[in-house]
Amino acid sequence: MPWFEDFAVGDRIAFGRYAVTRDEVVTFAGAYDPQPFHLDDAAAAKTHFKRLAASGWHSCAMTMAMVVAAQQARDAGEPDGGGALGAVGIDALRWLKPVYPGDVLRCETEVLEIKPSRSQPHMGSVKSRLTVFNQDDEPVMTQEPIVLYRRRPQGGTG
Amino acid sequence: MPWFEDFAVGDRIAFGRYAVTRDEVVTFAGAYDPQPFHLDDAAAAKTHFKRLAASGWHSCAMTMAMVVAAQQARDAGEPDGGGALGAVGIDALRWLKPVYPGDVLRCETEVLEIKPSRSQPHMGSVKSRLTVFNQDDEPVMTQEPIVLYRRRPQGGTG
Repeated sequence: MPWFEDFAVGDRIAFGRYAVTRDEVVTFAGAYDPQPFHLDDAAAAKTHFKRLAASGWHSCAMTMAMVVAAQQARDAGEPDGGGALGAVGIDALRWLKPVYPGDVLRCETEVLEIKPSRSQPHMGSVKSRLTVFNQDDEPVMTQEPIVLYRRRPQGGTG
Repeated sequence: MPWFEDFAVGDRIAFGRYAVTRDEVVTFAGAYDPQPFHLDDAAAAKTHFKRLAASGWHSCAMTMAMVVAAQQARDAGEPDGGGALGAVGIDALRWLKPVYPGDVLRCETEVLEIKPSRSQPHMGSVKSRLTVFNQDDEPVMTQEPIVLYRRRPQGGTG
């Protein structure tokens, strides 16, 4: 798992593949965002969505699934040590285009800012821009997650 | 459904009640955020969460469920007309405290900013601060949703 010191501004990675299904869109919306345009074709046709579209929060959840899968693939077999201490939050989340059943999503991230904690010397925060694209390479969502990481211990031998 | 003109800076509303269950926490995390501290008591005990905690995205989804339920209750029986045209996005989302199975969540919102659209005269945006509290009245999450609303048509007779 990476340490705070493993990040540099401008670092970019691309990862993830998520096929959006109609069943999942309707199930998520039924539980958490039961607005007609997330549940019903005829209702969606009358809106700017034009057809059944995923809840924006479902897009966030599917994105998190891609993030966690990429982290777990990267960390597999790595010695334990660094690692994320938790997410502070998200800035500037924007839903740019509807996400539809049949879409296939993927992610790109770029590190925007790295900041050692002043009050907690064992950690630092990393702010990135995460962009989610659909199969036509259109950005459908952007967000700027802020995540805390452990700092690499400074040994006496340098 | 409200028009853009129905909002004023400083307007506050309180709404919602959501009982967080262990089954739901684990089901959501299994699908979208399968990190050990969202799935397993023993793994969570070793982290700053101390015990099994909900995914931050699950907290967002439960919050949206409260928002939609409140909107639908308010709009029931109202003549159609105004209404939200969609969410632009969310600023300043912060996960302040863990959300645990057994917690009961509720919401408060305050309107921060109302802005007529310059390019699209039939709409305007409303930015609010939404705070989610647990049963001990501790804020567990804040976010600033930006939502587009239709403007009330200006009739010739005023």
